[in-house]
Amino acid sequence: MPTIPNALQSLNAAVLSDTLDGVQLMQQAMKPFMRPLDDTLQLIGRARTGVYMPVYAAPAKGENPYEVEIALVDDLAPGDVVVLACDGPTERIAPWGELLSTACMARGAAGCVTDGLVRDVKQIREMRFPVFCGGIGPLDTKGRARMVERDVPVMCAGVTVCPGDLVFGDVDGVVVIPRAVEEEVVRRAREKVSGENQSRDALRRGEKLADVFRRLGIL
Amino acid sequence: MPTIPNALQSLNAAVLSDTLDGVQLMQQAMKPFMRPLDDTLQLIGRARTGVYMPVYAAPAKGENPYEVEIALVDDLAPGDVVVLACDGPTERIAPWGELLSTACMARGAAGCVTDGLVRDVKQIREMRFPVFCGGIGPLDTKGRARMVERDVPVMCAGVTVCPGDLVFGDVDGVVVIPRAVEEEVVRRAREKVSGENQSRDALRRGEKLADVFRRLGIL
Amino acid sequence: MPTIPNALQSLNAAVLSDTLDGVQLMQQAMKPFMRPLDDTLQLIGRARTGVYMPVYAAPAKGENPYEVEIALVDDLAPGDVVVLACDGPTERIAPWGELLSTACMARGAAGCVTDGLVRDVKQIREMRFPVFCGGIGPLDTKGRARMVERDVPVMCAGVTVCPGDLVFGDVDGVVVIPRAVEEEVVRRAREKVSGENQSRDALRRGEKLADVFRRLGIL
Amino acid sequence: MPTIPNALQSLNAAVLSDTLDGVQLMQQAMKPFMRPLDDTLQLIGRARTGVYMPVYAAPAKGENPYEVEIALVDDLAPGDVVVLACDGPTERIAPWGELLSTACMARGAAGCVTDGLVRDVKQIREMRFPVFCGGIGPLDTKGRARMVERDVPVMCAGVTVCPGDLVFGDVDGVVVIPRAVEEEVVRRAREKVSGENQSRDALRRGEKLADVFRRLGIL
Amino acid sequence: MPTIPNALQSLNAAVLSDTLDGVQLMQQAMKPFMRPLDDTLQLIGRARTGVYMPVYAAPAKGENPYEVEIALVDDLAPGDVVVLACDGPTERIAPWGELLSTACMARGAAGCVTDGLVRDVKQIREMRFPVFCGGIGPLDTKGRARMVERDVPVMCAGVTVCPGDLVFGDVDGVVVIPRAVEEEVVRRAREKVSGENQSRDALRRGEKLADVFRRLGIL
Amino acid sequence: MPTIPNALQSLNAAVLSDTLDGVQLMQQAMKPFMRPLDDTLQLIGRARTGVYMPVYAAPAKGENPYEVEIALVDDLAPGDVVVLACDGPTERIAPWGELLSTACMARGAAGCVTDGLVRDVKQIREMRFPVFCGGIGPLDTKGRARMVERDVPVMCAGVTVCPGDLVFGDVDGVVVIPRAVEEEVVRRAREKVSGENQSRDALRRGEKLADVFRRLGIL
Repeated sequence: MPTIPNALQSLNAAVLSDTLDGVQLMQQAMKPFMRPLDDTLQLIGRARTGVYMPVYAAPAKGENPYEVEIALVDDLAPGDVVVLACDGPTERIAPWGELLSTACMARGAAGCVTDGLVRDVKQIREMRFPVFCGGIGPLDTKGRARMVERDVPVMCAGVTVCPGDLVFGDVDGVVVIPRAVEEEVVRRAREKVSGENQSRDALRRGEKLADVFRRLGIL
Repeated sequence: MPTIPNALQSLNAAVLSDTLDGVQLMQQAMKPFMRPLDDTLQLIGRARTGVYMPVYAAPAKGENPYEVEIALVDDLAPGDVVVLACDGPTERIAPWGELLSTACMARGAAGCVTDGLVRDVKQIREMRFPVFCGGIGPLDTKGRARMVERDVPVMCAGVTVCPGDLVFGDVDGVVVIPRAVEEEVVRRAREKVSGENQSRDALRRGEKLADVFRRLGIL
Repeated sequence: MPTIPNALQSLNAAVLSDTLDGVQLMQQAMKPFMRPLDDTLQLIGRARTGVYMPVYAAPAKGENPYEVEIALVDDLAPGDVVVLACDGPTERIAPWGELLSTACMARGAAGCVTDGLVRDVKQIREMRFPVFCGGIGPLDTKGRARMVERDVPVMCAGVTVCPGDLVFGDVDGVVVIPRAVEEEVVRRAREKVSGENQSRDALRRGEKLADVFRRLGIL
Repeated sequence: MPTIPNALQSLNAAVLSDTLDGVQLMQQAMKPFMRPLDDTLQLIGRARTGVYMPVYAAPAKGENPYEVEIALVDDLAPGDVVVLACDGPTERIAPWGELLSTACMARGAAGCVTDGLVRDVKQIREMRFPVFCGGIGPLDTKGRARMVERDVPVMCAGVTVCPGDLVFGDVDGVVVIPRAVEEEVVRRAREKVSGENQSRDALRRGEKLADVFRRLGIL
Repeated sequence: MPTIPNALQSLNAAVLSDTLDGVQLMQQAMKPFMRPLDDTLQLIGRARTGVYMPVYAAPAKGENPYEVEIALVDDLAPGDVVVLACDGPTERIAPWGELLSTACMARGAAGCVTDGLVRDVKQIREMRFPVFCGGIGPLDTKGRARMVERDVPVMCAGVTVCPGDLVFGDVDGVVVIPRAVEEEVVRRAREKVSGENQSRDALRRGEKLADVFRRLGIL
Repeated sequence: MPTIPNALQSLNAAVLSDTLDGVQLMQQAMKPFMRPLDDTLQLIGRARTGVYMPVYAAPAKGENPYEVEIALVDDLAPGDVVVLACDGPTERIAPWGELLSTACMARGAAGCVTDGLVRDVKQIREMRFPVFCGGIGPLDTKGRARMVERDVPVMCAGVTVCPGDLVFGDVDGVVVIPRAVEEEVVRRAREKVSGENQSRDALRRGEKLADVFRRLGIL
């Protein structure tokens, strides 16, 4: 996959969301039930997707319920972000935990985003591995769900995510930048950041918001 | 607006809620989806309100979608609390962020309460500006909603808030004290706090809860 | 009540949930809306239950609305966990707070689990008393609900809890272990932990997840 | 209880709701999840209330779980409306069915309103007994809930209902008229109906809505 | 506005939805909480839109809270469909009722679609005026909401509706056909209907579904 | 599969639910969002199950997205009830419609139960084919979901359904009777019906409910 633009590290979810709005892509921010396990970590990478289906019985003898999941993780490259679509928000399954995070970090993957639950939260926080999820809970997927497809377009927390899309997360949430617009979005977002800096300075000095907005056009 | 009672600083949302119950006002605590960005900050001030309507298209050329919002913020006085009614909980809009917080602080405003989302959470936390909100998300209101009225009665997270009402927030939630009862409520709440102190001491000493409750009538 | 197995302290909610799954008990983890007030505290003890009914008017003169609640708390023994069933999630009532926590600690009780709200969060956190709840809010039960039964089977956040059941909570959530299976579950869970340790080590060394899973059968 | 105003039969839920709004009572219409079993039946009577609490185990041997319920029904007088508060909407319990409807009709009771579920729908429809409910389902309350209080103020589908309040239901929903305002509300509602008749006639003739509204002030 | 294709009368919501899917427009069917007041009526026309904002106080003296609404209705032409966006589903407001339906019919308007509630259901059904709504309830908008804009793009029950878009409703739901694709969609839908007829005949004769699908490609 | 007990035709969902409660099976009634398309039809048969997974893109060229579904329908025998698990309630997919109903009837299948949506409601009602569903909507599964497994245990509207379980539906809802208890449940339910007849007669004659319940033990 193409390299990940370095400039992203100086950006944030809010400015990226505004910039995507500016190119008429208004459905790129995941719903607010998606929260980071660690508010201080930034997530930047390219999507590697998986889809879960509900399952209501234990796997048959000899069957490996984690087969597709394992294949996905073992195929990760540095900078990849695992995106797991569970048709969330859900109360039923926690498809992500410490062992998968450990395997990811060993491969240089950048983080995980899932609209399912996550478990082993204490350990994942200690690892400082960026995970954004739809909730916390101890429930294994075995006997409850199974990943059936990977590296296909998915819907996660209200956003369509295609394999290779840029995924950006910080305390404000998760934003997905489609491949086709990523260059333009990153360029424009950087410009907006500098406008915001001017705006902030003026407001701190006590200028009227009306005047600042008139002059800089930023809020 | 009248000065804000100093005694409020030694009170808390729970005791104020109990006291409001005691004067038959049982709908004064905002619903629990409303959470502070910073659990350690106390919010005390008088309400300055705004109402949003949903919008489904970008503003017309030359139109300022933030007009009423800007007017509200530029009109804030020290001790004012911005209360933004978005018919929340919502997944659609974050009407509050860093720049508005900056403008507020420059005017001495006390904080912001909104049943919408909030963005720029990291920066707002660093500013130690008290914000209570219905969630976190990066979505600008432009093209999604517009403040259409200000300084009118609103409903925010289940509570009717009139301009000038006392707004109190801490880690337990947000409570609204109508003008007509504020003197009585503050006075009674202070009395209740001292009763609670006695109760706590007795319980720590291992007294039976039944005895303590019989004696002090507080739980 | 029987003593509480010491081994529980080295376990966690995720491994206990997996082990309960393994004995065909798949409804033992409380729903994810249940969260600890303090992510760092472990809760271990035996359930002492109470059920609330909704009430829509102030108690009659001379009536003690907290009667059953007080009796329950005054009857607690060391290691007991108060489990309050409010038919949650709810926005209406906070049956737990600082004074009850204080009374509990004085009796050596281990903590509280409620699908209702909790108040006095700051003080409870300072006391380091483990509380898992369905949310935070200042609303007293008086005039809103009343405990009508205690020490009966209840449903709390989706799990049936019988008096005496083991209750285990950590940052991943709350798991309930029925009396009949507790010995087997604790034994098996300890074994699983040691398998997970091997698995983690192998993954850190960069082994393929597929190989590790094939060898250890753990994910 | 006082007689029930005859004029109610010529009124409807919408005009009563408007009239209650006109006397500043804006919370008198039950939420729209409440629907009649039979769209063609009008319900008019005075409230006789009951409150349910959740129960999670079969009743003890010899215990009568229906005790309060039976006492309420056996005490009904002609024109009474049974109002059952289940903290609905609920998926758990159907406190009303054919046998209770039969007992009610035998006493001349006017109907039943519950935010719980109802069962035996076919038979109740055949009896033409007016029932408004929060849904349909076969689940008995035994082992799931129990009426613990009767003839007390309740909240049903968002409306406070006191014993003796007038309850009015038709296809548009259920409206509750507190005792203190019932005379005024009925009188005003009758006036409004005649205004609406004029308005309807004018609109049918093709008059501009703007003109009709200006002249009659009704919409 | 352009004439409405006659062919629509022989089509249905399901086939139109499939055809819109076929041109990659997969968000054109309103959510299933939208139901017709009368299952037997077909709704066909072009959208005339209005947006409501929440209001929490009675209108000021002399203010006409229905101003924009009245202007919209008085401006309707034959074949227009009123589409009222209330950010539904909602429990708060019924923006549509008998008098507005009467005014609409007098102008030849084709029906009404709203994600708010509707009242005067009995009378509207008797008029056989096609209304699709998010629920039934008696609550007037006065003091609860106000139409603030009309003839702008809106979101109604999950679908973006632009003024002039074709709106089609039957017992299966409401589908919106954007202007740009209406010719193609209507043409393709007619072809699909004839394929379905062949498929139905074959299945009735007892042919294997697998064979029919292989031959006709329709399910 | 074993024959279907004839006695079921004289029973109803409420009495079956009570009887299942009586054998400690209290999770056998589907949630109340499940409603019949036709209130007058009784559904009796044995379950043939299918599970859907969410899909977010059109099927690949040449791929048949309906493959498992078609195989299930073509394999139906007289008296089979198709049970489609969509993890409902859902707004996204209508896996059932006229053509599948037609194919089912041609094979003598007894009906369909799905927690997804259903389309072609008018035609299915005309066919008098019993369908119980989670809602109505026009949305095809193609590009939205795909049946991935069939004839496995599923969860549908809150009830576990195993292939071969008896499925009973009427206007009061859908009840599932596991194979292991079906004989006992049917026998007991018939006894209960005769007790209810006596109870109804007594109540009609005006007997006190308390007396009737004391004598017959039925409510």
